[in-house]
Amino acid sequence: MRVFNFAAGPATMPLEVLEEARAELTDWRGSGMSVMEVSHRGKAFVACAEEAEIRLRELLAVPRGYQVLFLQGGATAQFAAVPLNLAAAEAAADYLNTGAWSKKAIAEAKGQLARVNVIADEAASKYTTVPGAAALRVSPGAAYLHYTPNETIGGVEFPYVPDTGDVPLVADMSSTLLSRPIAVQKFGVIYAGAQKNIGPAGLTVVIVRDELLGRARRGTPAVWDYRQMGGEGSMLNTPPTFAWYMAGLVFKWLQRLGGLPEIAVRNEAKAQLLYGAIDASGFYANPVARECRSWMNVPFTLAEPELDSSFLTQARDAGLVNLEGHRSVGGMRASIYNAMPLEGVQALVAFMREFERRHG
Amino acid sequence: MRVFNFAAGPATMPLEVLEEARAELTDWRGSGMSVMEVSHRGKAFVACAEEAEIRLRELLAVPRGYQVLFLQGGATAQFAAVPLNLAAAEAAADYLNTGAWSKKAIAEAKGQLARVNVIADEAASKYTTVPGAAALRVSPGAAYLHYTPNETIGGVEFPYVPDTGDVPLVADMSSTLLSRPIAVQKFGVIYAGAQKNIGPAGLTVVIVRDELLGRARRGTPAVWDYRQMGGEGSMLNTPPTFAWYMAGLVFKWLQRLGGLPEIAVRNEAKAQLLYGAIDASGFYANPVARECRSWMNVPFTLAEPELDSSFLTQARDAGLVNLEGHRSVGGMRASIYNAMPLEGVQALVAFMREFERRHG
Repeated sequence: MRVFNFAAGPATMPLEVLEEARAELTDWRGSGMSVMEVSHRGKAFVACAEEAEIRLRELLAVPRGYQVLFLQGGATAQFAAVPLNLAAAEAAADYLNTGAWSKKAIAEAKGQLARVNVIADEAASKYTTVPGAAALRVSPGAAYLHYTPNETIGGVEFPYVPDTGDVPLVADMSSTLLSRPIAVQKFGVIYAGAQKNIGPAGLTVVIVRDELLGRARRGTPAVWDYRQMGGEGSMLNTPPTFAWYMAGLVFKWLQRLGGLPEIAVRNEAKAQLLYGAIDASGFYANPVARECRSWMNVPFTLAEPELDSSFLTQARDAGLVNLEGHRSVGGMRASIYNAMPLEGVQALVAFMREFERRHG
Repeated sequence: MRVFNFAAGPATMPLEVLEEARAELTDWRGSGMSVMEVSHRGKAFVACAEEAEIRLRELLAVPRGYQVLFLQGGATAQFAAVPLNLAAAEAAADYLNTGAWSKKAIAEAKGQLARVNVIADEAASKYTTVPGAAALRVSPGAAYLHYTPNETIGGVEFPYVPDTGDVPLVADMSSTLLSRPIAVQKFGVIYAGAQKNIGPAGLTVVIVRDELLGRARRGTPAVWDYRQMGGEGSMLNTPPTFAWYMAGLVFKWLQRLGGLPEIAVRNEAKAQLLYGAIDASGFYANPVARECRSWMNVPFTLAEPELDSSFLTQARDAGLVNLEGHRSVGGMRASIYNAMPLEGVQALVAFMREFERRHG
């Protein structure tokens, strides 16, 4: 009955996790209540929340001196929360523009800062590249540098972490967090909407270096204030308890698999299989420079765009769903997050070959 | 196996709703995916979201000329979002202080407004009363008047809607929305965190009069901007899809029961039963003035506070859970939202009588 779901987010989740949630949906841990019904301040939920945080810290090897917050509002909320927390209204910050999500972050920051310096913009390549590491020049006095390590729509992923010296590095990792090991200590703030590799939509993970706390400007809403939320264990207001619980189940599932080193091996294998099939074909194409192709989001086009709708319909009939590209760019996109098994990518590649044979 | 759960929120939900969600948790409407896994922009979810909105509009008889938004961040986010949307930073607004949640709204508003006029404060009665309707004097030039129709902690509920003339009336209805019919046309903005009468935590319903859109000040975060969110069908960012879906199931359940007129009859009966038992006893007491006792949250004390922990333990053993009062006030509190059946209140009253007989 289950299909292979290539949606960009909300996205496929591990079936084991869904089944675990289903088994205890009306009676969580023998409480006689759903996990959705218990108080966020009760012992049982607080333990569940703390366990999730510990698992996330283990998975990412978060060093001492970082808060791990579970907030609401997604990356789009953080587009405003980052400048509110890290900079005065009169300040300036640096941004890298590598595509659609960078642009949204920049647009929102412009409403909160006196100046947004876009110190690199990949417009010339139509956002199929990332700036070279050596070319980055951080502006003197920048409150922080913000970038998007993986562009969910463009399918562009940084193969390196920018070196910003003393300027805090801020990353929107919504579509890459937990896909491979990262060096958290290089970052001032990492944030990610949950609906790709973490859990259901409505939860946002924020990882922030302690020394950046306390810079929030006057008027920063309490629910977005990193220091206040850190001080309250992310429970200054009622957290999205079910999503937090589900994230904990996903983290446990990832640890059972072997953590980020193991999932990275699997993710790279899935990506290589799909890019390899695209590159070996004269019918399919991916526009992204090879060194910065995303492991998570693989956009591709058909040689004959008038076949797009046939492709999507036949794919759906074959149990391969949500392959349409983002409405802003068209074409196809296969999002192959952690929970997409290799079998899903194999089935997609087999379908693509057969479609090309019949229509190419 | 299920218990009677008197938690103040997250709170008990209708078992039928939980069972409906469980039945389709890994395969929603034959899609081969969980509702958590489908794209918020896909036809199926958009239809689900719109259906929920239509049901909510029907339940509340929302007149033409109002947006119904499904946002994130809870009431605490709205404490900041309301002034950002309705007033300039130089402006003033009026607030009524009837207890703990009023105070939080006031504190957050002070960070966003030049002046917060607290035009009524029930400190003298220790927040066991509401101001008289005739005594309210709206300040000239106030951007809006904000109040808390039901105080979840104090158990105080307004028996009337303040008349503010041309000044927009704003209400935090988190713990009362959907408990009885209301006259939406009297309000400029109504908002409510979901985790009492609507659905899982992580969703916030905002109902706003169209003519108030477009007043948002520069720098209002996009995800909190009522006009922008209204224009995007609450999907400017990824919404909390699962919570929205669950809210739709709750609305459908309420409509099956007979809507707000019917649930009001049931809620009044539950409240009368519990207050009647408290008032008939010399052992239990509720401090709230009779004319403004909450239908939803019933705080009460024992004549001998040293029996509190015995009461809670024995209640738990009897399947009556989460009766402890808010940590800021102690004592007991029974939250008896829509999903609490009359049988739950009957069981509580029987337990209270028996406890009094043995210990009183």
